[in-house]
This record gives sequence, C-alpha cells and structure tokens, in this order.
Amino acid sequence: MFSKFFFKRGIPILTLMLLSVSSSNAQKAVGSPKNEKIMEVAVILFEDYETLDVFGPAEIFGRLVDQYRLNFYSLEGGIISNRHGVPIMTEKLTNVEIKPDIVLIPGGLGTRSEVDNPLLINKIKELSESSDYVLSVCTGSVLLAKTRLLDGKRATSNKRAFSWVTSQNGSVDWDKKARWVVDGKYYTSSGVSAGMDMALGFLADKHGIEFARKVAKEIEYNWIEDKDNDNFVTQ
Amino acid sequence: MFSKFFFKRGIPILTLMLLSVSSSNAQKAVGSPKNEKIMEVAVILFEDYETLDVFGPAEIFGRLVDQYRLNFYSLEGGIISNRHGVPIMTEKLTNVEIKPDIVLIPGGLGTRSEVDNPLLINKIKELSESSDYVLSVCTGSVLLAKTRLLDGKRATSNKRAFSWVTSQNGSVDWDKKARWVVDGKYYTSSGVSAGMDMALGFLADKHGIEFARKVAKEIEYNWIEDKDNDNFVTQ
Repeated sequence: MFSKFFFKRGIPILTLMLLSVSSSNAQKAVGSPKNEKIMEVAVILFEDYETLDVFGPAEIFGRLVDQYRLNFYSLEGGIISNRHGVPIMTEKLTNVEIKPDIVLIPGGLGTRSEVDNPLLINKIKELSESSDYVLSVCTGSVLLAKTRLLDGKRATSNKRAFSWVTSQNGSVDWDKKARWVVDGKYYTSSGVSAGMDMALGFLADKHGIEFARKVAKEIEYNWIEDKDNDNFVTQ
Repeated sequence: MFSKFFFKRGIPILTLMLLSVSSSNAQKAVGSPKNEKIMEVAVILFEDYETLDVFGPAEIFGRLVDQYRLNFYSLEGGIISNRHGVPIMTEKLTNVEIKPDIVLIPGGLGTRSEVDNPLLINKIKELSESSDYVLSVCTGSVLLAKTRLLDGKRATSNKRAFSWVTSQNGSVDWDKKARWVVDGKYYTSSGVSAGMDMALGFLADKHGIEFARKVAKEIEYNWIEDKDNDNFVTQ
C-alpha cells in the first residue's frame, strides 16, 4: 500500500526497505472471518487531531489485515501532528482518486478551526457520500454534521463539548446519553476511548458479537458493549 | 521540538508551517499539577510495533503538555510503520545525544526479531540506565529483559506470549498475574490496552490517584486501577 505512495513522494529507499520488512510480517488475526474483499478505511487527519481518536480504532481495524486496510489522508498531505506531538505521515487528499469503503473522522481541538474550513468539509462530504460507512469519534461528528449529511439523523459526540457541538447544527438529532450511535451507515461516538467501543461495535454489527469480543480480548480491552449507556455522562 | 529535527532532514517548508499551527494550538490540561520541569519521554520504535502499545500511553502523557513531552525515535530514523499500516515519523537514535527522563518501549510482532538486534538492545540499555523511569508495554519487556537490567527484578508482559517472553531471560522474576508491575524505576505491563492502565498508574504514583482518575475521565477510559489483577489472564 505504501510503496506507491512513497515512491511518488521520493522518500528514501531505506524507508521502502523498512516498509517491506513490515509488510512481510503481516499476519492473520486469529479467527478472522473470511470476507470477499478488503475494506479500505480512509482516516481523515488534520492538525491537532486527538491521538487516541485515531489510533484506538486503528489498532482494532489495523490488526484485521484480511478485512481492513488503513489509509491516512489530509488536505495537504505529508506529516500531520497534534498538541501531543504525534507526527503521522499522510497522503494528500486532493491528489488521489479514492473511493474508501469506510471513512473515519477523529475529533480533537483541531475541529474548532476545521469546522470553518470548507475545503475539508466538502472533501468529507464527497467521501462520505460515496462510502459504505462513515465513522466519527468525539468531536469528529461536528465536521460530519457540517456536511449536512447528518441532518434528521441520530448522532452523538463528546459530552464535554456537547453545547458547542450541537450549536453547529441543530438539524441533527443529538443523543446526550449514548456511548455511540448507529443511524444507517453513520456511526458516531462519544469522547476519545469511546471510539474503540464504537469500532468494536462496528465489528459486532459486521461479523457478530463473538468476533468483536475476541478482538477486544486480544487487545486486552474492557469493551463497553452497551452503546446506549455512556457511564461518563453523569460522572 | 520538531522544527530542529525537520530542518535537519530537509522536510519541505509546508510541513514546518503545519507543525507551527499544531504547536500554537497547545493547551494546558485541566487541573495539571505544576512540576518544576517537563519530563522528556523517549518512545523507542521499530518496524512492526503494536499500534496501541505506543498511542495509548501517548494519549495519556501527550495531553499533559505542562509535564511531559513525547519524542519518537528509531535506530534508522524516518518513517516507521507496522502491519497495521500506521506510519509514524521518528528521529534517528544514533544521530542525537539524548537523555530522556522516561523511556517507553512498546511491544508488537517486531519484538520477535528485534530481540536479536544488539544495536537496538544496547541503545535501550544505554537510555534506560541514564533515565529516571523505564516503561514497557506488552512484549516490549522482552527487549528490556535482554539488556539484563531486569535481572533479579519483578516484571510482566503479554500473557499470550508469556512462554516465549520468559524463555528469553530466566533471571527476571516474571509475574503471571499482574496487569502491570512496578519495581524501582521499571514499569512493565501486560498486553496492548494494559499500557494505558500502566501509564495512568504511573501518573497516580507521580501526581496522586485523583489526578490519574481525572485524566482517565477526560479520555473516557475505564481505568483498571488494580495493577495486581489482570482479568485477561484467566479469560
């Protein structure tokens, strides 16, 4: 996956050698269901994304190498970082024709400015319309709500930022209590770690709850299985 | 932090502009304790590291911008990726004189080959000896055990890889039941998500349990506070 990308960008041959080592280590997850094709996951990054919003779901989808493939994108491409100092390499969104099966939109403080970035919002809209599923974590649902694709639909977000989130689009049926919400092809979650619960919930919907439980156990994660009750709401 | 690094490597000016946007967004975590200095965290990466082993603790330390600063290193520098396809930018370990306060060593399938890489083991040994704390997640404890610095000390690792881990160094007092183990300056955790529990445990030891609970709540993480009982051992 990365070879084509890095060749295009002229990244040193050493990097390619390292990446080839990585891909040769690819192993099947135990008990993976056999799907007919690998689903491409497009992770949309922007400056000051929230670290775990991205890499919690990335751990869960990424380990299922027979079913899902992660691709990291941003408007400008190149290194995208955040206030935590986590520099991730991305491909330029506008340079490539992509038709992901799943779009993943993280939250983070960066959403406060990106919500007013029509270039990003329009790209999210375009990708979301053509994809099978759209998943957002934390305040990532604000960016999705700005596309108007959530109008009339149920959704949730980080409860600590709820008044700001809901002020950005009053036509969404915002759920104040859910850990995550599913409405058609749209999955939206509460804050940070809730993205992992939602990703496991997505696996349960696609592959059955026992499969999702097995993945949770492999990563030693205490999965909150009940999407309707977020115990962080009233704490 | 990144400017010096990227200038050295000739990364395009656009990247620097993006990074400067990121650093200007840096905000203080609510209720952060006031320490006298920022602790430098050196995350040691290698090909085929485990995603959440790195970015779980990175979320926890990274958000405390007044107390901790993340730095990502690898033997060769540049982009380091894994079977999940997560490409992270690192600085070259042998190019810089660093004296981190905290060393963080993730696990992952890559440890199966890195355990026989004396260059990496020696570098981990050198950094661990000079740092105040050394934290390992999952099979990262094998790399640490190979330095012999854990000889005669209590430690733990991923229970699913326990027989391989313990076969690499029989002079370590391996704990089969713990979620994480503290022995002096060495913190070692069980698999994947256990790294987050350990990182929160480290915060509790340094700043008090209420502070650690506040961070766990901010990231909506159901922290397993009891380090002695890993409920994934018997599942």
